[in-house]
Amino acid sequence: MNMETKISELEVGYDVPALPGMSVDEIQTPCLILDLDALERNIRKMGDYAKAHNMRHRAHGKMHKSVDVMRLQEELGGAIGVCCQKVSEAEVFVRGGIKDVLVSNQVRDPGKIDRLARLPKYGSRIIVCVDDLGNVTELSKAAEKHATVIDCFVEIDVGAGRCGVSTSAAVVELARSIDAANGLRFAGIQAYQGAMQHIDKYEDRKAKLDAAIAQVKDAVDALVVAGLKPELVSGGGTGSYYFESNSGVYNELQCGSYAFMDADYGRILDKDGKRIDKGEWENSLFILTSVMSHAKADKAICDAGLKVQSVDSGLPFVYGRDDVKYVKATDEHGVIEDLNGVLKINEKLRLVPGHCDPTCNIHDWYVGVRNGKVETLWPVSARGKAY
Amino acid sequence: MNMETKISELEVGYDVPALPGMSVDEIQTPCLILDLDALERNIRKMGDYAKAHNMRHRAHGKMHKSVDVMRLQEELGGAIGVCCQKVSEAEVFVRGGIKDVLVSNQVRDPGKIDRLARLPKYGSRIIVCVDDLGNVTELSKAAEKHATVIDCFVEIDVGAGRCGVSTSAAVVELARSIDAANGLRFAGIQAYQGAMQHIDKYEDRKAKLDAAIAQVKDAVDALVVAGLKPELVSGGGTGSYYFESNSGVYNELQCGSYAFMDADYGRILDKDGKRIDKGEWENSLFILTSVMSHAKADKAICDAGLKVQSVDSGLPFVYGRDDVKYVKATDEHGVIEDLNGVLKINEKLRLVPGHCDPTCNIHDWYVGVRNGKVETLWPVSARGKAY
Repeated sequence: MNMETKISELEVGYDVPALPGMSVDEIQTPCLILDLDALERNIRKMGDYAKAHNMRHRAHGKMHKSVDVMRLQEELGGAIGVCCQKVSEAEVFVRGGIKDVLVSNQVRDPGKIDRLARLPKYGSRIIVCVDDLGNVTELSKAAEKHATVIDCFVEIDVGAGRCGVSTSAAVVELARSIDAANGLRFAGIQAYQGAMQHIDKYEDRKAKLDAAIAQVKDAVDALVVAGLKPELVSGGGTGSYYFESNSGVYNELQCGSYAFMDADYGRILDKDGKRIDKGEWENSLFILTSVMSHAKADKAICDAGLKVQSVDSGLPFVYGRDDVKYVKATDEHGVIEDLNGVLKINEKLRLVPGHCDPTCNIHDWYVGVRNGKVETLWPVSARGKAY
Repeated sequence: MNMETKISELEVGYDVPALPGMSVDEIQTPCLILDLDALERNIRKMGDYAKAHNMRHRAHGKMHKSVDVMRLQEELGGAIGVCCQKVSEAEVFVRGGIKDVLVSNQVRDPGKIDRLARLPKYGSRIIVCVDDLGNVTELSKAAEKHATVIDCFVEIDVGAGRCGVSTSAAVVELARSIDAANGLRFAGIQAYQGAMQHIDKYEDRKAKLDAAIAQVKDAVDALVVAGLKPELVSGGGTGSYYFESNSGVYNELQCGSYAFMDADYGRILDKDGKRIDKGEWENSLFILTSVMSHAKADKAICDAGLKVQSVDSGLPFVYGRDDVKYVKATDEHGVIEDLNGVLKINEKLRLVPGHCDPTCNIHDWYVGVRNGKVETLWPVSARGKAY
């Protein structure tokens, strides 16, 4: 939000979907709402877990893109900082006062490297991932130009099959190069196994992580031999954090989706075979939608379609309702199967989106609710920041 | 954009992906770019067609959500106004100075009805769709409260299977009710056949439209008999406008996607069996993306993933390139199959998105380019306005 704009000056509709003090029934749908009680419980729970396991928790801000949620993760969950995927996101978090910011991605464009190298001037520690010797030279030149220091993680490809180097020899070679470069500091290892987070079975996820941990341990041992012991070994998501926490190799987690949950993550199973949204975490993020037409007896039309959610990981489910089902999304409408015709015009439903990250990225506001009232509005501060 | 903010005060990255005067190579990707020459040709072409066929063209603003594009459609394409799907979009277009605004959708929530009824005070004609007698009463009360006039279209379901009434008797009943209600004016018929727009074969689309036109003609005849001749009969999209224009029944078109094109629309065939993006319309909208990693010999990773596009209608294609193919989207990355290893780090590609409407709705800015330079930046004025 523009610093000059006060919530009290905003107009419902033109600017915002709701204002603090409204009842939930008055919220202009569709929009994202946060169940603040559930959110706070999730954040405290992950914070307590990390503390009990002596892990730093660097909350993944690419999921919520919100300075306000990030501050809550610091205050209630003891998060030590944020990770994000884009320089433009880092710019928002730095200006929002977050002091330890990791861009968990490669930055290669000259304009973006220049922007990244300027960021430490605002008083935050900036870390970026590197998987190529040429990039070390590029980053070093930019840091020297701006008289700043950029911390660098060497990224290891532990199974995502996208970015990152694959051998311990390559890790050591890159770490040496960073260590020797002006304006750069070798700060540790990025080793996030993204490809396994959504595998349903706990044992299948564990097998993938066991392999990743062995690979990272080998790299750490090689770095120690080379006199370049990594300060931080960072990774771990909502589907794996207990493996990294008990590995004896990692010392930093990067969980994001635990705070909000979504339908796709909710389906994965814990070690007892129970869905993780039925005990481990609570759904705190919902698309609030209203029934706007019921011209056909067996289907209701709601106001939440493709422009308020990403359906890449499947359709949303209707929270707390077994009697109705979201079955189709078009641009501005959702079709709800209502075989018994129980839904009424203007009835509100809470949808759990299929995939929270790209869904949050569509919305300008989180409407925070508690006890049936709108308590707060938080801008999705880094919304649309992809560049 | 906030009226107080000048383009010259914006910072690349934190605020915008580019600034006027930059070369295309300096644009911070990923972002949406508009080929202004192609866009202007599309807009003039549709305007000329509508004029030659004596049709009003009400451009569909739900596609681009931009006051600037809408003004171009008025200036170069002779558009008589806009249609949109949400009250929040109408609020943006009214405040942006568009004088004839149709919400081509039902509005049932009390808060939204109140917002809609206030809009005519800003000097624009406001039209809304109705398919239920109860809604007539609700709209009338709100118009009376604000001492405004709301124009109403009766919506006919001509095949979309969503909103709208199905019989001519129901159309006449609703038109009578509107005509008798204080604060409302019966302005015509909404009859948009959305379900057929993306059917590939011209003859298959024609069969659907022939049926729709017959249904609308029957309703118009019944209205004339009832003394309620509709001023406007409105409908028609990029896959059908020639049918409505030659029907002798419709007098207003509602085309949107013709201006930008996308991969899903581009695939449909004209009456000669030719893709409509190979002659009828030009691609003017692209996601500009950069190659950011090429660690694997046969695939390049670009910076455009799920957070810059909607993949509901399929993946984007790489414009003007037969040698590489976009094969997978994750949150922040796209995987480009590059079997011959021709792509270089930082090389820029133009992606034609699968579905333009929900893709545009993710972005804050259109970067307008001409002759290799950034000429203008247009805010996606009604971005995120879903409520």
